Amino acid sequence: MTEFIPPGTRFVELPSPFPMKRGGALHGARMAYETWGTLDDEGDNAVLILTGLSPDAHAASSERNPEPGWWEAMLGPGRPIDTDRWFVICVNSLGSCKGSTGPASTNPATGEPYRLDFPDLSVEDGADAAAHVVRALGVERLACVIGNSMGGMVALALLSRHPGIARTHINISGAARALPFSIAIRSLQREAIRLDPNWNHGHYTDERYPESGMRMARKLGVITYRSALEWDGRFGRVRLDPDRRPDDDPFGLEFEVESYLEAHARRFVRRFDPNCYLYLSRSMDWFDLGDYCQVQPTSRAADARDALSRIRIERALAIGVHTDILFPLQQQQEIAEGLAAGGADARFLPLESPQGHDAFLVDIARFGPAVRGFLDRVR
Amino acid sequence: MTEFIPPGTRFVELPSPFPMKRGGALHGARMAYETWGTLDDEGDNAVLILTGLSPDAHAASSERNPEPGWWEAMLGPGRPIDTDRWFVICVNSLGSCKGSTGPASTNPATGEPYRLDFPDLSVEDGADAAAHVVRALGVERLACVIGNSMGGMVALALLSRHPGIARTHINISGAARALPFSIAIRSLQREAIRLDPNWNHGHYTDERYPESGMRMARKLGVITYRSALEWDGRFGRVRLDPDRRPDDDPFGLEFEVESYLEAHARRFVRRFDPNCYLYLSRSMDWFDLGDYCQVQPTSRAADARDALSRIRIERALAIGVHTDILFPLQQQQEIAEGLAAGGADARFLPLESPQGHDAFLVDIARFGPAVRGFLDRVR
Repeated sequence: MTEFIPPGTRFVELPSPFPMKRGGALHGARMAYETWGTLDDEGDNAVLILTGLSPDAHAASSERNPEPGWWEAMLGPGRPIDTDRWFVICVNSLGSCKGSTGPASTNPATGEPYRLDFPDLSVEDGADAAAHVVRALGVERLACVIGNSMGGMVALALLSRHPGIARTHINISGAARALPFSIAIRSLQREAIRLDPNWNHGHYTDERYPESGMRMARKLGVITYRSALEWDGRFGRVRLDPDRRPDDDPFGLEFEVESYLEAHARRFVRRFDPNCYLYLSRSMDWFDLGDYCQVQPTSRAADARDALSRIRIERALAIGVHTDILFPLQQQQEIAEGLAAGGADARFLPLESPQGHDAFLVDIARFGPAVRGFLDRVR
Repeated sequence: MTEFIPPGTRFVELPSPFPMKRGGALHGARMAYETWGTLDDEGDNAVLILTGLSPDAHAASSERNPEPGWWEAMLGPGRPIDTDRWFVICVNSLGSCKGSTGPASTNPATGEPYRLDFPDLSVEDGADAAAHVVRALGVERLACVIGNSMGGMVALALLSRHPGIARTHINISGAARALPFSIAIRSLQREAIRLDPNWNHGHYTDERYPESGMRMARKLGVITYRSALEWDGRFGRVRLDPDRRPDDDPFGLEFEVESYLEAHARRFVRRFDPNCYLYLSRSMDWFDLGDYCQVQPTSRAADARDALSRIRIERALAIGVHTDILFPLQQQQEIAEGLAAGGADARFLPLESPQGHDAFLVDIARFGPAVRGFLDRVR
């Protein structure tokens, strides 16, 4: 079992025991985080970033770690999330393998990795753990919490479970609940990992590692993170050079798009722990903000909307992308409308990015001004 | 190796040798087909149906086989494809395992199943084989060729390679070429089968059968055949009854949508030959009508459009569905516009069906009138 912790990562110990939503508790658990900028004297310029499934806390380069981060173009001095103005915190998700405690971490009760003995992980546990980091850093109230993808779910759970923790919120390609298409995709990704004989019910090693299962899961992920529209222009029907094609495999790689998927998958499979992937993936399926509604349920959609309307914040922005098939646009619209029903000045911003669910990582030309404009008005 | 041939299926021998587009030839090959209705004295009331990847030739019940067919609501006396008026032919695709010769059939040279010794299969080979069936049944010129999904590709190849074979054409959720999103999905389905150790480079048996790989491939297929919109309404976040959940599997089925996929997959895996699946799937990736253009290529899109404009037919209808992610709407629009550029009275009909790529199989309320209306004008 390997954890992948960027240099310069800092840690906060979680309360021990740290109770988990679906039962059980963690002992001696920790959260990994990084910060940029300086908390001002009033303590009111803090921005929290909650990530998608796989990123670490290294969102951008810093003195402690000059390597570019996964959101480098968005975050830094003069950038849309301007670290000359904001004290920015990014946490690695609870349950991940990049510094925060997760299934790949050592279980203090046994001295062995948790593997499948890790308790059930919910989005809400990640929210509670993130709230603890915020408090531990001396922040009483965040100026803004920004959540991307899964982080958008975590942010809504944070706002629901910790009233007053943030004045404003940017939800990027997030959702108030998992819908069946996304559940089906994630279920299939998990099945691919579990079917790999090397997964061995979670007891793999570096030598016997579920490489094929992880490769399948990642390829399916990449397919659903991007969009057909983008790929039409980017790959079309271009074929690999003959010398890049395998000779001996009649069904081997032939098109550029296949090679692109293969390269993406190869970079990922040994850089993310399979059990952590399973736990985080399942936590998204379980997530439904409707669990926090207190009216008689009529439908789950109504429940989620009611729960959103019970969140008290000043302002919010829900950004989505037309080409996103995993967290489709209606889900960000639902967030904006639900928060507005609760009294927030909440806006829905659909963007025409071709890059699908992953657009926030690459289409900074569209996302940058939207995020910058929102934060300009927070002060 | 098993073939799955519905009772009542008829056969036409293909010329021997039957040359294949990418090289090699079949010897002693045959095509499976069924017919409904009667060819009139002028021989001008014949309609050919070309299917998607998996269906057999049994599109509808008949005297020879009273079981309902896969397009039962569309085809029969008084139905949209009215067998009181039309002599309807449906062929099982070349390369399939449902009566027509394919990788699961016996290789006359060895007396063993072809398996991976079957020659490379192209959409064009299927078109040539279908043309042979049409001629063998005494039809000089089809009143209409109808192609669904992969069959839409086969139909365009048929019209390109056999000028004059049809007066009119209905292309349903088809495409003039494969685009990278669909290629990526199909590539991943094939990889799932090939990764299954029981696939064994095509040398599986009924006892050691690539069941997991086929299950994965089929689930991914079903996910891309339907739509998120349909599933939101159909499954939402409904969970299985506890007594239908596996006790011992922490990542087992939990949501109705997962159970639906599982049931679909289980019905399929032993009813379609894995090698045939691989061959047919790959043939779609290879298909590009632009191969038939004769102008200087500027882009592949332009090529396909040029090739479409070289097809000579009287009338055409290209039907697509807003929620189709596998053969998206622009592809049917391209077909209609390309055929119109060639002088056909060609119309593009986008439908609002929620059922995605598979809508033509189930949304007869929308597809039925469109097909009936077109055929009414053919006579």
